[in-house]
Amino acid sequence: MTKPSQEGPEPHYDKVVSGYASFHHPAPFRCEWGGELPEYTLAYETWGELSPERDNAVLLHTGLSSSSHAKSHANNPNPGWWEEFIGPGGAIDTDRFFVVCTNLLGGCYGSTGPASPDPRTGEPYATDFPILTVADMVRAQLPLLDHLGIDRLHASVGASLGGMQSLLLASEVPERVGRAVSISAALRSHPQSIALRFVQRQAVMADSDWRDGRYYGVSFPSRGQRVAREIGTITYRSGPEWLERFGRARNDDSRPPRLDEDFEVESYLVHQGEKFCLQYDANSYLYISKAMDLFDLTDDSQGRPRIEAIGAPTLVIGISSDLLFPVWQQRELAAALEKNGARVTYAELEAPYGHDTFLIDLERVGGAVKAHLEE
Amino acid sequence: MTKPSQEGPEPHYDKVVSGYASFHHPAPFRCEWGGELPEYTLAYETWGELSPERDNAVLLHTGLSSSSHAKSHANNPNPGWWEEFIGPGGAIDTDRFFVVCTNLLGGCYGSTGPASPDPRTGEPYATDFPILTVADMVRAQLPLLDHLGIDRLHASVGASLGGMQSLLLASEVPERVGRAVSISAALRSHPQSIALRFVQRQAVMADSDWRDGRYYGVSFPSRGQRVAREIGTITYRSGPEWLERFGRARNDDSRPPRLDEDFEVESYLVHQGEKFCLQYDANSYLYISKAMDLFDLTDDSQGRPRIEAIGAPTLVIGISSDLLFPVWQQRELAAALEKNGARVTYAELEAPYGHDTFLIDLERVGGAVKAHLEE
Repeated sequence: MTKPSQEGPEPHYDKVVSGYASFHHPAPFRCEWGGELPEYTLAYETWGELSPERDNAVLLHTGLSSSSHAKSHANNPNPGWWEEFIGPGGAIDTDRFFVVCTNLLGGCYGSTGPASPDPRTGEPYATDFPILTVADMVRAQLPLLDHLGIDRLHASVGASLGGMQSLLLASEVPERVGRAVSISAALRSHPQSIALRFVQRQAVMADSDWRDGRYYGVSFPSRGQRVAREIGTITYRSGPEWLERFGRARNDDSRPPRLDEDFEVESYLVHQGEKFCLQYDANSYLYISKAMDLFDLTDDSQGRPRIEAIGAPTLVIGISSDLLFPVWQQRELAAALEKNGARVTYAELEAPYGHDTFLIDLERVGGAVKAHLEE
Repeated sequence: MTKPSQEGPEPHYDKVVSGYASFHHPAPFRCEWGGELPEYTLAYETWGELSPERDNAVLLHTGLSSSSHAKSHANNPNPGWWEEFIGPGGAIDTDRFFVVCTNLLGGCYGSTGPASPDPRTGEPYATDFPILTVADMVRAQLPLLDHLGIDRLHASVGASLGGMQSLLLASEVPERVGRAVSISAALRSHPQSIALRFVQRQAVMADSDWRDGRYYGVSFPSRGQRVAREIGTITYRSGPEWLERFGRARNDDSRPPRLDEDFEVESYLVHQGEKFCLQYDANSYLYISKAMDLFDLTDDSQGRPRIEAIGAPTLVIGISSDLLFPVWQQRELAAALEKNGARVTYAELEAPYGHDTFLIDLERVGGAVKAHLEE
């Protein structure tokens, strides 16, 4: 496979500033499973300052539904998804590190995805978008690193799909990754996780408004996508916390039960589903979800055991209550990394929030990340 | 609440034979949360012979999607869902016991349900069917027991929703239940289980062919119901077995991946979903699923702690890999029964099949049931 970073004309270095930016790669990008993007754009955000030696960059990878807006900044004061984790003295200390967070290739927050116009036709790619892998996502980041003049990252950091990218990058370009952090990710996707994502995709694709993905300007599969996100929310958030938070409380005890929304936990799911429909493109969801299923560090599309290439000291964090990436998978990952010679720090946290603990547990998740980045 | 068994005219005893039968209750049946059925029918099957003392009956309760066909018999030689568990010398020994299995009130296998004509209108009840509870299901069984001349059951047995019914019956009419068996059920439905069933109902109700339940003769929400069953299948069957059985195998390695059915585990889910659509009424699914969410032995619609009434020696079986009714819920149930004075035998089995282990593990599940029934 050729590196896309070497395919296009060499981009020149821009001045590196905090805030929102967009990187355009004007040359063709060949995807792992075949199919080509004639060009692509990656939207990204940065915090902190790149050192004169350009050696203090931390590349932060997002999960399926997060945007590059990991933290507020002057151009966008809204809180980011890791607002408390990033900042001066924080888990990712912006007094020390220059943080880059990209929007996923295939996503819908400014990077090229199924909703983007295919320059060959002028129409949205829709389901003509090529099948994506996590390797495609990180390979698309390399020209951006070149563009920013970052030869070698201090660290590659991510949780969930972000953890998959973090590890994949450390195997794709080991010489460019100083250390890696994988939170609630996996060595490979196992059948239960594949099944849980498959039914979400099926919920979208079962919606007659999905129209085989050619819904742009016509309809939007919001009913299916809402159900999909409700399922996703169970896989992200269910855990002992729900017992405390919702228990068996109903929205209105004075009213008899009904088939629709009734228990408080159900209204929570509905709210999550509706919110998601308003901010995410259904086809992006399908493609990125599928990329997660295809993730396998032991056997990629070429049969390569990518895990063997990872030499960076790696922090692996697992959460006891994670339904989607259970702790046995964290242990499997840590053991495989160690077996292949990487130095591994493994932390298994008892926490009640499930998979999304990485968004919540500043003290322990943040503390472990900080220690790993600064050791 | 009045007992429906005392509302209608006293049914006369029929000769009790093995095979398929139907019991008609010609008088109104008032449901726990309000709403009334002017009459109802329960279809049921029996195996073995009722003793002259009429004291050897075992009432077997079904899960959500099972019919009364727990075992083959002369009238229907197809294997039943507990084919190997029931029979001469079996876990439920038909040389000793007379086994009765009823089709659920609200179901679609011959008992009155949403697809049945409302005698007041001649049209299917559809979503005018009253909200059902597990208590309604077992209270509807009592006139059948009267009809069969069974004053007191040797045992009430069930798994999953069947376990809920088994326990509910033991609390509703403690004087009529000699012992109880609850396999992979619960003391009450907890938010994660409610959430997992809610998204299944939402998948059905999101299908434009559902038409607020008034689809009879017009359409059928098969896309939504297929997705619902795919989700359900994850909750019933995912476990370590899937790692062995499916792993990451794809249907066709020579073909690039696609958004739709691709991995073997996905085709398994699709198959389960399609099979279910052909044999189950969507509204029955919604009502029975909801009844499971409403199940709470500590606090019913009247605030009564039904658990306190259960005095029958009870076997509680939990499965280590059960995602839907996890073992902590089995321990919670066993502890609550004991605290309220019931003698409890608790068995926690390590098994790779998840919730559906009760359908598979003849040796250990069957063995424990046999020991409890025959002690």
